[in-house]
Amino acid sequence: MTASTAATDTRTRLLDTALKLFSEHGVEATSLQMIADELGVTKAAVYYYFKTKDEIAEAVAAPTLLELEQIIEGARTKRTRGAQIDHVLHGFVELIMRQRLLLGLYNSDPGMQRVVTRTFQAPRGEDLRTRMRAVLAGDNPGLDEAITVHVVFTGIAMAGGAPEYAGVDDETLRRNLLEVGRRLLGRPKRR
Amino acid sequence: MTASTAATDTRTRLLDTALKLFSEHGVEATSLQMIADELGVTKAAVYYYFKTKDEIAEAVAAPTLLELEQIIEGARTKRTRGAQIDHVLHGFVELIMRQRLLLGLYNSDPGMQRVVTRTFQAPRGEDLRTRMRAVLAGDNPGLDEAITVHVVFTGIAMAGGAPEYAGVDDETLRRNLLEVGRRLLGRPKRR
Repeated sequence: MTASTAATDTRTRLLDTALKLFSEHGVEATSLQMIADELGVTKAAVYYYFKTKDEIAEAVAAPTLLELEQIIEGARTKRTRGAQIDHVLHGFVELIMRQRLLLGLYNSDPGMQRVVTRTFQAPRGEDLRTRMRAVLAGDNPGLDEAITVHVVFTGIAMAGGAPEYAGVDDETLRRNLLEVGRRLLGRPKRR
Repeated sequence: MTASTAATDTRTRLLDTALKLFSEHGVEATSLQMIADELGVTKAAVYYYFKTKDEIAEAVAAPTLLELEQIIEGARTKRTRGAQIDHVLHGFVELIMRQRLLLGLYNSDPGMQRVVTRTFQAPRGEDLRTRMRAVLAGDNPGLDEAITVHVVFTGIAMAGGAPEYAGVDDETLRRNLLEVGRRLLGRPKRR
């Protein structure tokens, strides 16, 4: 293992540990010291990567934004609107399934709500929302189309992290979110 | 005016003023002193009604919970599932339109997210969600039906407070939310 991959590995482990502690205690009640203790490193080692807990929380949420951008880019290579919608919906539901812990936190923890709100309302998040709407509803969608897309995708994200479904296994929740999304967006049932 | 209605009036004005200041500065940055100054009363007069800013923020959000409960109670008097769904959807959209300022705050202000999350995850909020689901999807809904209702209603609430539609006038937004909701829930178009 090179020094660079070791560093990547530590940073990744740090973010995984932070998310675990955030989900157990909430963002506000988790300290850098707790993260260091859980990782078995010194607080100085955590400081090497992140100066504040907010930076850690933002880094925990950031890959979601990046993945959404990649999904939208991927949709641009599809030739029909239907295929583009399918691509975004499928990628979105997969992303939600991988991020159930983070989404659950967003639904229940004010500290994580603060971070996610800031991330998605920053220029990059706003740009992302605009591009996603353009792929799903066209460049100049009517209000009805824009609201439909907004309702379905924010609704799926909220349902994916809702405490009501926390006990549902991944495969069942994935299938249901996808089926509900397809039906609400007027896409044909999958074989 | 009796002493009792004068007190009701002051409390109402206090909550209206608090919501206005919250929406301008965020909950965190609004002080009891600022609310007193804006109302033209002493801080002691504010203390007479509320001991903390959190109590004020909860009182700002509380009528929404009460109105939702009344909408769900109203739906129980309707004889068909379709009429019940129509009643809840219509009441929900009307509530959203009256609470655009509050919903906008929920979408952007961590302080208000904290209050609303606490309100809706308290036993009374959880009970409300359970009863709402029972009216809309039956007493023992399948996962598909439960998720559909969850997606449509949380999605409509999120869209109602989204910055994208802040410039849309009330009448247009109301009509669009209602039409999108009816279509997504499989209800026939209104005349």
